[in-house]
Amino acid sequence: MGELETFYADVAALDLQPLWTQTRNLMPDEPRSAAKPWLWKWQAVRSLCERSGKLVPIERGGERRVLSLSNPGLGGLPFASPTLWGAFQYLGPRESAPAHRHSPGAIRFVIEGQGAWTTVDGDACDMSPGDLVLTPSWCWHDHKNGSDRPMIWFDGLDMPTVIALDAVFFEPHPEASQPLRGRNLSERLYGGRATRAAAARSESPHSPLLLYRWRDTEASLAALLEGSGEPMVTLRYVNPLTGTSALPTMGCEMTRLVPRRRTRSLRKVGSSIYVVFRGRGISVIDGTRFEWGAGDSFVVPSWAAVDHEALEPADLFSIDDRPLLERLGLFREAPPGEPQQVRAEFQPR
Amino acid sequence: MGELETFYADVAALDLQPLWTQTRNLMPDEPRSAAKPWLWKWQAVRSLCERSGKLVPIERGGERRVLSLSNPGLGGLPFASPTLWGAFQYLGPRESAPAHRHSPGAIRFVIEGQGAWTTVDGDACDMSPGDLVLTPSWCWHDHKNGSDRPMIWFDGLDMPTVIALDAVFFEPHPEASQPLRGRNLSERLYGGRATRAAAARSESPHSPLLLYRWRDTEASLAALLEGSGEPMVTLRYVNPLTGTSALPTMGCEMTRLVPRRRTRSLRKVGSSIYVVFRGRGISVIDGTRFEWGAGDSFVVPSWAAVDHEALEPADLFSIDDRPLLERLGLFREAPPGEPQQVRAEFQPR
Amino acid sequence: MGELETFYADVAALDLQPLWTQTRNLMPDEPRSAAKPWLWKWQAVRSLCERSGKLVPIERGGERRVLSLSNPGLGGLPFASPTLWGAFQYLGPRESAPAHRHSPGAIRFVIEGQGAWTTVDGDACDMSPGDLVLTPSWCWHDHKNGSDRPMIWFDGLDMPTVIALDAVFFEPHPEASQPLRGRNLSERLYGGRATRAAAARSESPHSPLLLYRWRDTEASLAALLEGSGEPMVTLRYVNPLTGTSALPTMGCEMTRLVPRRRTRSLRKVGSSIYVVFRGRGISVIDGTRFEWGAGDSFVVPSWAAVDHEALEPADLFSIDDRPLLERLGLFREAPPGEPQQVRAEFQPR
Amino acid sequence: MGELETFYADVAALDLQPLWTQTRNLMPDEPRSAAKPWLWKWQAVRSLCERSGKLVPIERGGERRVLSLSNPGLGGLPFASPTLWGAFQYLGPRESAPAHRHSPGAIRFVIEGQGAWTTVDGDACDMSPGDLVLTPSWCWHDHKNGSDRPMIWFDGLDMPTVIALDAVFFEPHPEASQPLRGRNLSERLYGGRATRAAAARSESPHSPLLLYRWRDTEASLAALLEGSGEPMVTLRYVNPLTGTSALPTMGCEMTRLVPRRRTRSLRKVGSSIYVVFRGRGISVIDGTRFEWGAGDSFVVPSWAAVDHEALEPADLFSIDDRPLLERLGLFREAPPGEPQQVRAEFQPR
Repeated sequence: MGELETFYADVAALDLQPLWTQTRNLMPDEPRSAAKPWLWKWQAVRSLCERSGKLVPIERGGERRVLSLSNPGLGGLPFASPTLWGAFQYLGPRESAPAHRHSPGAIRFVIEGQGAWTTVDGDACDMSPGDLVLTPSWCWHDHKNGSDRPMIWFDGLDMPTVIALDAVFFEPHPEASQPLRGRNLSERLYGGRATRAAAARSESPHSPLLLYRWRDTEASLAALLEGSGEPMVTLRYVNPLTGTSALPTMGCEMTRLVPRRRTRSLRKVGSSIYVVFRGRGISVIDGTRFEWGAGDSFVVPSWAAVDHEALEPADLFSIDDRPLLERLGLFREAPPGEPQQVRAEFQPR
Repeated sequence: MGELETFYADVAALDLQPLWTQTRNLMPDEPRSAAKPWLWKWQAVRSLCERSGKLVPIERGGERRVLSLSNPGLGGLPFASPTLWGAFQYLGPRESAPAHRHSPGAIRFVIEGQGAWTTVDGDACDMSPGDLVLTPSWCWHDHKNGSDRPMIWFDGLDMPTVIALDAVFFEPHPEASQPLRGRNLSERLYGGRATRAAAARSESPHSPLLLYRWRDTEASLAALLEGSGEPMVTLRYVNPLTGTSALPTMGCEMTRLVPRRRTRSLRKVGSSIYVVFRGRGISVIDGTRFEWGAGDSFVVPSWAAVDHEALEPADLFSIDDRPLLERLGLFREAPPGEPQQVRAEFQPR
Repeated sequence: MGELETFYADVAALDLQPLWTQTRNLMPDEPRSAAKPWLWKWQAVRSLCERSGKLVPIERGGERRVLSLSNPGLGGLPFASPTLWGAFQYLGPRESAPAHRHSPGAIRFVIEGQGAWTTVDGDACDMSPGDLVLTPSWCWHDHKNGSDRPMIWFDGLDMPTVIALDAVFFEPHPEASQPLRGRNLSERLYGGRATRAAAARSESPHSPLLLYRWRDTEASLAALLEGSGEPMVTLRYVNPLTGTSALPTMGCEMTRLVPRRRTRSLRKVGSSIYVVFRGRGISVIDGTRFEWGAGDSFVVPSWAAVDHEALEPADLFSIDDRPLLERLGLFREAPPGEPQQVRAEFQPR
Repeated sequence: MGELETFYADVAALDLQPLWTQTRNLMPDEPRSAAKPWLWKWQAVRSLCERSGKLVPIERGGERRVLSLSNPGLGGLPFASPTLWGAFQYLGPRESAPAHRHSPGAIRFVIEGQGAWTTVDGDACDMSPGDLVLTPSWCWHDHKNGSDRPMIWFDGLDMPTVIALDAVFFEPHPEASQPLRGRNLSERLYGGRATRAAAARSESPHSPLLLYRWRDTEASLAALLEGSGEPMVTLRYVNPLTGTSALPTMGCEMTRLVPRRRTRSLRKVGSSIYVVFRGRGISVIDGTRFEWGAGDSFVVPSWAAVDHEALEPADLFSIDDRPLLERLGLFREAPPGEPQQVRAEFQPR
């Protein structure tokens, strides 16, 4: 064994590693995500959700009937991207999911059903399609379906990030359901349009408004699109007390696409999960073409180029890790470019 | 002349003054405003507005047809309080008021008429009763009445403060009317309910939203009152990008009173001007009873105690200097107290 | 009496005023301060201070032995400018000034003497020439001279502003001297050079550091000047927890001038009071030439042009209202210009 | 195959995963870090550094001669904890390391040697034992040893976090050394003690001060300890323009221990790497006893309990991920507890 080999062996034996042999592997020129651009078809997801409703009870320990998007590039982890958890939750008629809280923050975006509510720290938030409900970090929450039909919604969490930061706490509530303080309370104090209660206060890092109704989002999208001349407009859901993102770790957006107008191509640091709320269309991600329709979900990894074209009026809900990256000074985006050339076609399962 | 007299004379001759002879006069235990609690009746104000419309043209130099509230305690100054300007502006059918800008910031709260608009930096903001329009510091603005009936609105400015700070700048626009960029543009980008355009940006210290519609304010008041159990709820108009007051120097609020329920008595540092938008009622200010009805305006000086009782459903618009005092660490309020004993009756003119 | 005269009389009778007759008087093109540029000679001030020491006791009610700069443009008010109070305080050997607190905030800049201290909320802050001591809004403070020689320092307060805002509160301490918690305590927690105690906390709007030593200021001036090539460098005293001005309403600066190099001419919104700590030189303010030496003080009103030239190495301490104007979005400065032509010579008294 | 097995197979085939089978594994009650408490002895590290100096050239590609702490709990990754990179860099006499920049931010804490400097965006920052030099995210930097003796310093980076966020960018400088603008420039503008240049500006999320001298840190430690009565005092290195942590993603602290006084036991979310700058002592981490001396480094994983006892006056430099966790609302600490019982002894290699 040569001197260098001996040296490397001695280094390893002392729980050290040389940097110089792996510098550019650790720090490539640009982000090279292990995550793959990927799409999940609604029909398949929905059918598995229904089957799970018949086969799997909702119990303490498991806590929720949820199927998570497992990005094939991430070696079997149940994560849609290295920083984001995306999943579909199924709550059968009259069912409920037990109360708990955790340090990962979550959002719920309603796809199907009506008459359910999520109770967040005692405030029952009604859920209808297109509504966004926040269950921020360490807030007690449980879900109830008060209707005779199933509910399905999209769950978005910052869980992969909170796991990576060794910062996960979890606590089951002593009762299956927490006591109610009222219904849609956060709307009264914080739901105004550029007005707020003089008595409104918040010391938390997340939005005190917990329920963002689709009819408001729709009105804002329409106002924004009117006369803009753009193929695409995007809204962010914000904390009305600060104007910053509703959650500190995760962004929520809604994008409206004008049919038959292809957008410019964008690249940003950080990943996104898109959920098609309405419409049909095509997105090209790093040269691969993804066709989508209502209920489909797809992932855009960090620094992947993406452009969209709707085939009919379309609204895409999405979550991302941008607020976190911005708070850390790590966010970056490339200048918008030409739509991409298609080099491959994604084959959904 | 004794030694001390000589000394005081020598001090004065050198443009100096002893503190010790006036310490407690300069710094009393609590604020003792020179401003008096006062009320102006709408009928009288409105009749003078109409007469001014016949007698006085709107011209460069005078710029506006405005009657300002002149607090009798302020020695002839045209100010409602030491920090606030309150006034009524009259714009006849098809009239317009020329474009200019100034460092004092202003708000317009519409009392009567429809079909007028204020153009702010090229954005024509429609004005109907109950609407609030901002013309923030150093923004170009002109007013136009496109209807065949007169318009009257309340003008609130921080002008006394900006004068006291030696910070007034004024510039007439080269044209009578500035060019239009569009109509109600600020609403599209910034008017959403806890959503905002992803592209929204603001570098200014004031709200980028310039128009706050009465129907939105009304909906927020109703939501806030619902189930609150309180005799009074108060909204603040905020900058949707930051959650702070719409203007940095002046606050705008709307208070809804429940009939026949007297409120607790409040005292705060800083003055307020109230404009009765709707309803009838009574306010007691430092022991004096003020009766008011729609269109009336009244002043509450700094540190004066005030409580209200509506005789029918009532909405009070108000401006104050609270954001300024808060930014400087000078805001204070006393704990809410019992309603005051009435010791005098205000006799309006 | 014509129709218009009757109208104006009716307007006045109802405590209203027309705007159009006074628009441009209220809002001129640029700030036109009533304050005059003015200078007070140290020799005269010092001599009066000494005489006051013999003639006037320090008692409750008067509280302090202080001579304030009374700007001849301000109609007899004891203020150096519309927003700033500047004064000289004289504390004889072994004397003390009783404890009190007030909402106006103050700074003390030591001119002469050694061995005195100001106790601020129980923290005894030692005072030597060139030191800056803060007694922020509503902090208890008293002064003690532990030496056998008199002390003279400059007092700067935001009092005119706090009076204009109807926000003055005052409270005498129940005892002549407040109890001591320790000596120069604030230095230990907050006096580090870009380090701070991990346990450091502040909820107040002012700096938790109360004592800024001349030796530190001197070292910073020297470092800043080194190799800068400029005729003038200026330091701001900041709150080490936030990097913003030490007090929210009032700025403190120290300016070092290089001899025989005239500076550019500056104009800013807001006034300043300068106190010459060291050196001799000349300042030109709106065309008038002011000669100054150590201990002299002079006022630069809002929007007045000013340039300086030192005749020997000179350090000028100053206070201003810039932090307040910046927080309100009202600060502005003109681009630096050529040194001014001298049109007049100031004749000190 | 039963119905449930078929279901799980179908779920997996569609790149989905059930949550309910792994809920509590993903979200345990408290953080359970994979990282182990671990310690590296200076003698061993130093000797390997010296051998590397003889065996390994510094070249483009490898870029630096660095040995990184590889936590045995992290499956072979070259990271000290899941969020922190810690390493020792060796620069031989007259050697230099080429200029590059990367989005991970770094700090350098000097252990041994004198006469080297790190150039950061053109500013040559001198390095002596105990000095801290920042090379913040995306700043050009290169290192030079101008002396005839080797230099060794500790490198701390947020690299594991930036990798986990898919946010790594890297760029070699076109030249081996970047052009110099000057020497210790950042000190002149930003190095004052609670004063700053009036012209100071910063738009970046990191400190504009790049060099924190040991003599200043030492003075602050001494001041802080004086009369504190505590067995331990801790300083944070801050951005002088904002008072927040010097880098947005990573904290730097210096802790001084009083000999023979055991500290209370602390637990916090997030990991730390300690480097012993001076002294000898013992730390107990989650029940295991670690003995340390000057130059040793050790890791405290997230939510591990830790207490210290110095055997002689000791100063511990440390980095952590607390600023990141605080910005995201994820920081938490347990109330300080009794010193821990020792259950095991760490055997260093």
